[in-house]
Amino acid sequence: MELTHINEQGRAKMVDVSKKQETVREAIARGNIYMKKETLEKIKEGTIKKGDVLSVAQVSGIMAAKKTSDIIPMCHPIMISGCDIVFTLNFEENKIEITSTVKCTGQTGVEMEALTAVTAAGLTIYDMCKAIDKEMAISDVVLLKKTGGKTGLFERK
Amino acid sequence: MELTHINEQGRAKMVDVSKKQETVREAIARGNIYMKKETLEKIKEGTIKKGDVLSVAQVSGIMAAKKTSDIIPMCHPIMISGCDIVFTLNFEENKIEITSTVKCTGQTGVEMEALTAVTAAGLTIYDMCKAIDKEMAISDVVLLKKTGGKTGLFERK
Amino acid sequence: MELTHINEQGRAKMVDVSKKQETVREAIARGNIYMKKETLEKIKEGTIKKGDVLSVAQVSGIMAAKKTSDIIPMCHPIMISGCDIVFTLNFEENKIEITSTVKCTGQTGVEMEALTAVTAAGLTIYDMCKAIDKEMAISDVVLLKKTGGKTGLFERK
Amino acid sequence: MELTHINEQGRAKMVDVSKKQETVREAIARGNIYMKKETLEKIKEGTIKKGDVLSVAQVSGIMAAKKTSDIIPMCHPIMISGCDIVFTLNFEENKIEITSTVKCTGQTGVEMEALTAVTAAGLTIYDMCKAIDKEMAISDVVLLKKTGGKTGLFERK
Amino acid sequence: MELTHINEQGRAKMVDVSKKQETVREAIARGNIYMKKETLEKIKEGTIKKGDVLSVAQVSGIMAAKKTSDIIPMCHPIMISGCDIVFTLNFEENKIEITSTVKCTGQTGVEMEALTAVTAAGLTIYDMCKAIDKEMAISDVVLLKKTGGKTGLFERK
Amino acid sequence: MELTHINEQGRAKMVDVSKKQETVREAIARGNIYMKKETLEKIKEGTIKKGDVLSVAQVSGIMAAKKTSDIIPMCHPIMISGCDIVFTLNFEENKIEITSTVKCTGQTGVEMEALTAVTAAGLTIYDMCKAIDKEMAISDVVLLKKTGGKTGLFERK
Repeated sequence: MELTHINEQGRAKMVDVSKKQETVREAIARGNIYMKKETLEKIKEGTIKKGDVLSVAQVSGIMAAKKTSDIIPMCHPIMISGCDIVFTLNFEENKIEITSTVKCTGQTGVEMEALTAVTAAGLTIYDMCKAIDKEMAISDVVLLKKTGGKTGLFERK
Repeated sequence: MELTHINEQGRAKMVDVSKKQETVREAIARGNIYMKKETLEKIKEGTIKKGDVLSVAQVSGIMAAKKTSDIIPMCHPIMISGCDIVFTLNFEENKIEITSTVKCTGQTGVEMEALTAVTAAGLTIYDMCKAIDKEMAISDVVLLKKTGGKTGLFERK
Repeated sequence: MELTHINEQGRAKMVDVSKKQETVREAIARGNIYMKKETLEKIKEGTIKKGDVLSVAQVSGIMAAKKTSDIIPMCHPIMISGCDIVFTLNFEENKIEITSTVKCTGQTGVEMEALTAVTAAGLTIYDMCKAIDKEMAISDVVLLKKTGGKTGLFERK
Repeated sequence: MELTHINEQGRAKMVDVSKKQETVREAIARGNIYMKKETLEKIKEGTIKKGDVLSVAQVSGIMAAKKTSDIIPMCHPIMISGCDIVFTLNFEENKIEITSTVKCTGQTGVEMEALTAVTAAGLTIYDMCKAIDKEMAISDVVLLKKTGGKTGLFERK
Repeated sequence: MELTHINEQGRAKMVDVSKKQETVREAIARGNIYMKKETLEKIKEGTIKKGDVLSVAQVSGIMAAKKTSDIIPMCHPIMISGCDIVFTLNFEENKIEITSTVKCTGQTGVEMEALTAVTAAGLTIYDMCKAIDKEMAISDVVLLKKTGGKTGLFERK
Repeated sequence: MELTHINEQGRAKMVDVSKKQETVREAIARGNIYMKKETLEKIKEGTIKKGDVLSVAQVSGIMAAKKTSDIIPMCHPIMISGCDIVFTLNFEENKIEITSTVKCTGQTGVEMEALTAVTAAGLTIYDMCKAIDKEMAISDVVLLKKTGGKTGLFERK
């Protein structure tokens, strides 16, 4: 199989999707941000009392999903029709699991939008906690599932 | 130690850095994107012959570094004075290591710019290869080193 | 009735509109900018002779309408299909009335686009006249009317 | 006194500030968003329990402050060094008072940044509550105070 | 024939296209960048060995095509469905010919997107070579052909 | 002489300017847009009566100058301190001459900002007149002069 983004001069192009069908498409992506236990506790306190780091991360992830085609050079502009992000605090592994879901009706999928939402949310958590923890790591950012389009269902094993 | 981005109403603010000194600052970040061996080989062929996925990833990472304060809500706008990205293909672990270096002279550091460059480059590699490999994973995105500013040198152990 | 933008974790989400029908939608918004009589006279002179503050405000309002989903976090991206702004100088109340009309064919309305156009045009008038009048006030920014979509016609009483 | 943004051809220009001194500058702006009592109560509930509309408005205001020179055509790009927004719920007048404070060290002031933050925060409140209240009005958006620069202190009477 | 972008107050508006039909549309634009023979040779070396100026120009042109409605005030936002750029080195005239092709399915054409891609690619070549040649000139930027829409085929004679 | 934007891996980088001195810098660029005589007459009428195409082109050029580092991948972000554009209608050659002047105080020059302003203004003229003239051509976009920085004065012969 060949890379599809390369033109005859060997340079990148935006693949022509004008003959693809408009279908409802959904993508779910996930990633983790690992941190010190103390950092995770600070974040948890904030979600209970005041200073919710995760609500800022949520906004940044959703806004980044809308900016995806401005960040990823060969991405088609897409009018996403829905976006949500869910955070799961995991005190056993000292991490926050970030899961994004993006939907659209269009000629091309929203995998990149979902992945971009996860990384932007992770970067925002890093930014807001870096004064107390510079060793956080964003990891395991993967596409969990996508539906719609010619290739149909993909689910990560 | 307390989170610094939270105002008295418990909401996020952009921290006031107007009394911080302008110093030369540098940050180095790194991350990996894991993929199938075949995908890594396709990318390697491109760098030798034609269709260089990594040159597009490079451009996207540098452009994303400039957009950092537009992606991360509480980040200060920064005029970065230099940015470079280096890719290392690793056939033992079937991954590409992405290392970014960002510089500025300013009142606040460029850690987030370096981390944003790495993730954008990783997402671009994903985008350009996803037709042949949807199981790629972006992992281990960390700050390796930063210099300058009040807190001075940080080096990841 | 409940706020619709909140997910189960109590955080903001972009509401899923993928099952909404595509209809022709229009929204009309209005606002006033109050100023000193002398400022209003300067602006009027400009529209007659040279230096048309309002033509810059017009451009800024139309461009801001296109940027709405980049400014308002939970707004869906929308391809607006038309936008116009009309200014009415009122020397009795020393104000300029700014009225915007925005159209689209889509799954969600253009109310926010119309309101954003009015505020951007008002802010631009402020910016271009602030050297002679810092006491201007933007007021009464409201949605006058919207048509299309499931909820149909809304008209402000 | 003359409008300063007009060139010899009678068209807008970005005023040359290259001979102005770099000073610390601050601007405080304020505005109100009026709504139904029920809407105000819903928002208050959210700040106590879940679904904090105001934390999204806060993020949007701060991000809009950074985008000011992209929204207001003749505004100079500015590296703001701090930004905060405070909301005051007023049940007597059924309004939320939005107050923004913006700082920078530069050749030109941050009045437009502070005003833009207030209007973006107001528009975001409108967006998140418009399903239950389309008659909200953004009003009284004014510059309260600015310090720094050649003209020094301005305080609204 | 009259200019269509002017409203009754004599100011610019975004023309209402909401009654236009959605058709497949394509536009091809072309331009030249003239330079010293030595500069052209340096660029050619890069495409053979390392340091491909044209691959960066390619990325910038495609990304600029996506940003067109953010650069050209009265342009409608468009979801382009494909974009490619081809470079032809001409050693007789010491120029690079830049040809862009843009496609979409929509209510309005992609002429401006194709022209914007050409100019951004040209400006990027200028930027990357200006250390060795400040006398480059971007010239002859024209629309070669467009198809689709009410006015149908246009071909430059 | 070598191209400066290429790193050791043969890919583009943003050149490190952190050791360059901050100086006052100015750049003047020029370009022409050729058109039918009738188009030029329509534009002239607009500048006398109503519907000033050139005032929209002016705004777009100035706003594009501010967006330069977002359009040209390896450009440093720059806080321009002034920008103006002048249009000269030439009925002998049926063209409009577009001249931009950009200033900044910084570590790197504003040549690209001046060139970007000229091309954006030209593209906007094209956009607003394309309903009556699709054969317009943007030509002769060159840097006329730049001052400041290590290389000092450049003047096009």
